[in-house]
Amino acid sequence: MKVLIVGAAGMIGAKLASRLAADSAIGERGVDALTLADVVEPRRPAGRIGTVRTLALDVSDPGAVAGLVTDRPDLVFHLAAIVSGEAEADLEKGYRVNLDGTRHLFEAIRAEHEREPSYVPRVVFASSIAVYGAPFPARIGDDFQLAPLTSYGAQKAMGELMLADFSRRGILDGLGLRLPTICIRPGRPNKAASGFFSNILREPLAGEEAVLPVEESVRHFFASPRAAVGFFLHAARLDTGPVGPRRNLAMPGLSATVAEEIEALRRAAGDKAVGLIRREPDETIRRIVGGWATDIEAKRARDLGFRAETSFDEIVRAHIEDEMGGRIP
Amino acid sequence: MKVLIVGAAGMIGAKLASRLAADSAIGERGVDALTLADVVEPRRPAGRIGTVRTLALDVSDPGAVAGLVTDRPDLVFHLAAIVSGEAEADLEKGYRVNLDGTRHLFEAIRAEHEREPSYVPRVVFASSIAVYGAPFPARIGDDFQLAPLTSYGAQKAMGELMLADFSRRGILDGLGLRLPTICIRPGRPNKAASGFFSNILREPLAGEEAVLPVEESVRHFFASPRAAVGFFLHAARLDTGPVGPRRNLAMPGLSATVAEEIEALRRAAGDKAVGLIRREPDETIRRIVGGWATDIEAKRARDLGFRAETSFDEIVRAHIEDEMGGRIP
Repeated sequence: MKVLIVGAAGMIGAKLASRLAADSAIGERGVDALTLADVVEPRRPAGRIGTVRTLALDVSDPGAVAGLVTDRPDLVFHLAAIVSGEAEADLEKGYRVNLDGTRHLFEAIRAEHEREPSYVPRVVFASSIAVYGAPFPARIGDDFQLAPLTSYGAQKAMGELMLADFSRRGILDGLGLRLPTICIRPGRPNKAASGFFSNILREPLAGEEAVLPVEESVRHFFASPRAAVGFFLHAARLDTGPVGPRRNLAMPGLSATVAEEIEALRRAAGDKAVGLIRREPDETIRRIVGGWATDIEAKRARDLGFRAETSFDEIVRAHIEDEMGGRIP
Repeated sequence: MKVLIVGAAGMIGAKLASRLAADSAIGERGVDALTLADVVEPRRPAGRIGTVRTLALDVSDPGAVAGLVTDRPDLVFHLAAIVSGEAEADLEKGYRVNLDGTRHLFEAIRAEHEREPSYVPRVVFASSIAVYGAPFPARIGDDFQLAPLTSYGAQKAMGELMLADFSRRGILDGLGLRLPTICIRPGRPNKAASGFFSNILREPLAGEEAVLPVEESVRHFFASPRAAVGFFLHAARLDTGPVGPRRNLAMPGLSATVAEEIEALRRAAGDKAVGLIRREPDETIRRIVGGWATDIEAKRARDLGFRAETSFDEIVRAHIEDEMGGRIP
């Protein structure tokens, strides 16, 4: 099977690439060719796959995107996007990358499909819970409206609609995954409004200070990077027959408060680690986070076998295993 | 006030243009310039407005669309679209006209807004209940998901998302109106799957035969052309403050069965008119119509003052008054 990952230099894309290269299979199907593309050339993962191509390209260039699918990959993961903050700061770039880039990819697949009608690749699209906007019900159901409150969310929702339409028309066999906030993000603290959810665990686990800008009662919806990679791999091999025409699925996750995060940190690393969290209330962040979903039912995805963590202990453990070599320093 | 109607040669667009030309005002605000654009040059309506321009242009040409807003219309009605059947038959044309055309218009407004930040025109966008797709709850609420089952519906939903995003960003002051099936459509019978809903009233009222391809128990959701024009005029002068960021509104309408249509015809024109309806069951039409919404709550729109007919007697009366000179031949 030939696999293409667009957005393979991003955090989830790179983890997915590493996993595919290491396993050289998804379920029972062997992966013999892997193409990794992003705006910067993705790192070449270690593994035993015969052919690995790494490419730097701009998804907003239709010709470059067309070149990605001329060898007709059986499976396409589409994770390329500029993030929420940047899409909000630069309207043109957001629509150009997040909407046009997605459209160019789907159109490139359509061109191949029209040359060879039996070519209908599985396409797994990284969407986001940003397609939802407040006010929310206590728990967002699968039939809740798309009413995003960011340009990023609007662009992801537009990509979802096109994915479903192209799937319904038999051009591609798409699944859109509305990802929860990913926690614990590896790496360094960043300035994303959601960053603190990861920072207050990752930094104290490594013996560093972290800033908490909101109350401990704040509730949000999470999945680990490990769970996110699992969503993509599950979507890659899912039988889409029972999915029907509604191809965009809210992914499962953990609804939890900051207090629950902190208690999981205490159980994993003790009071000393918890003591590294410094309270610095930030009204702006508090207001932004106040508009975010606190719980999502994700019944369809759960019924289709998608799985996420059910406690922050699991999320912390996944981070220690996957990012810290299994132990706290 | 300067008003632009894009799609002014279509059925609703032309009625709206005639009404504006006749009234030369919307509410308290005078209309002194009216620009009417469509893919064919719109008919020049009778009236007293100082400046009326009529233009033929292709909305998928960004330069042509930009030229429409260089004089900064205060109010823009955007009704230009290719219809559902054509968008399904010609995927490229559907996305080009219905998505790109809408985007070019919003982008042209953005360019003017960036030149002059106080320029934030009201934009009223013709959306459709085609943004919904089966299965439905018994009554579709305002927070029901966007899951269209046609390319037309997907393109309208994408336009809605962009309208809401550009409104939230203060580029334009948009309202999207999800129109019910318009009944009674004037003119001749057409081959649209929904055509019979109008045909079985309009033709017998004029003493002609009409074909009914489905059972009388079939239920659907309707508003008259008169009500539709009313929606656009109400949206043009609505205070959008209380609307908030969810700028796309399901319009009110009448949920009724074919049997109720027929009984209204009987009350208006007698058994002889009803006798002109010929039953010719059509499995294809039956199946298509079976996937359509039967009832929509439209609570937000009703609360905001949008009004539609509450019986088929009213719908029939509007047709007799507006299209038949007030009397049945």
